[in-house]
Amino acid sequence: MNIGVLGSGIVGQTVGGKLAELGHSVVLGTRDPANVDEKKGYAPSLGEWLAGAGPNARLGTFAEAAAHGAVIVNALNGLVSVEVLRPLAASLDGKLLIDISNPLDFSRGMPPAVLTYEGGASLAEEIQRALPGARVVKTLNTLTASLMVNPRQLADGDHSVFLSGDDAAAKAQAADILRSFGWRDIIDMGGLASARGAEMILPIWLQLFGTFGNPQYNFKIVR
Amino acid sequence: MNIGVLGSGIVGQTVGGKLAELGHSVVLGTRDPANVDEKKGYAPSLGEWLAGAGPNARLGTFAEAAAHGAVIVNALNGLVSVEVLRPLAASLDGKLLIDISNPLDFSRGMPPAVLTYEGGASLAEEIQRALPGARVVKTLNTLTASLMVNPRQLADGDHSVFLSGDDAAAKAQAADILRSFGWRDIIDMGGLASARGAEMILPIWLQLFGTFGNPQYNFKIVR
Repeated sequence: MNIGVLGSGIVGQTVGGKLAELGHSVVLGTRDPANVDEKKGYAPSLGEWLAGAGPNARLGTFAEAAAHGAVIVNALNGLVSVEVLRPLAASLDGKLLIDISNPLDFSRGMPPAVLTYEGGASLAEEIQRALPGARVVKTLNTLTASLMVNPRQLADGDHSVFLSGDDAAAKAQAADILRSFGWRDIIDMGGLASARGAEMILPIWLQLFGTFGNPQYNFKIVR
Repeated sequence: MNIGVLGSGIVGQTVGGKLAELGHSVVLGTRDPANVDEKKGYAPSLGEWLAGAGPNARLGTFAEAAAHGAVIVNALNGLVSVEVLRPLAASLDGKLLIDISNPLDFSRGMPPAVLTYEGGASLAEEIQRALPGARVVKTLNTLTASLMVNPRQLADGDHSVFLSGDDAAAKAQAADILRSFGWRDIIDMGGLASARGAEMILPIWLQLFGTFGNPQYNFKIVR
């Protein structure tokens, strides 16, 4: 399948790399695809990523990634997601948009606040408003990048990932991708408004990062 | 030990009943202790609670409960907690105050928003500001009442509870009480500001209540 990944930080690189490894054709969209030496926070440079990702992956602009394929992953910083996505609306029409972004505000210390939008909406809903033709599904935003794509690395995958979206077929397609990563406990919480809950658990996730000193943990919903 | 429980809804009744069963002397503080026929939402009437709680428990005013013992449990509705607690400040001076309350705003539908206070503070921090002499510890606010006091009912207790507070001795005393309930995985997240994270997971908790149709589940932090 052709998949465009928007955002080239650690989340975009990790998810894009895994999708390429699984045989998909991946365009990783970044602000300046020529700048392959740029370091993205904790992530390797784009040149290093490209060298590791193999023949199925290449770099492109945001517009090239959005035009590539029927499935798009939003791995942008939550604080700029709407601004970057809105001009791409025509390219994203009818496509599954897997939204992994989180709108975190660190200005008041740890843990960060989670921004909400008009009417108390989540970022996922705000993105859906900006892209009415896209089929937005929120998932994978509640854990560290390496576990998103290799859940079996932790407790043989005995932990949970959440799914929110208004389009049942889009959620089913997203769940297929999650299963291809190794996910077993995929909890469909309902419509896209349920993403509010999934975005609001980032503060405790980040608090626990401080407590444990490493990000190799996840929520399991014991039931 | 003498323990005052403030609030006589399902959380106060369940925690107060368990503490009495464990041999503590409990005063359950309620707005009108004479009104034993009053139904409190999902909870039994106070008369039914009193009949079941045995000889170690009695009803009292908020002031009587706050004056009773060295440990106080805040099981009030989060939206009225500060207003009810502030006038009790002198009684609560130096005491461990276990805060279970959640400041939930259901006005914009499900899942609810979580209110925050000046500077992005949690309700636990707002209570600490209102009661500077109390030793506030946030815990138990992230799951249903019956599991708070009987965690072994679910997966033999293989799930997590969080602890936040600025006073290490107060946290140790709260952890002792949690262990007496059967808790094994008690995660000390640090200072009281870490309660922000614990309060923010209520939206997903309530969302999952809708998904599962019953409240017998909890978060386990797999690590």
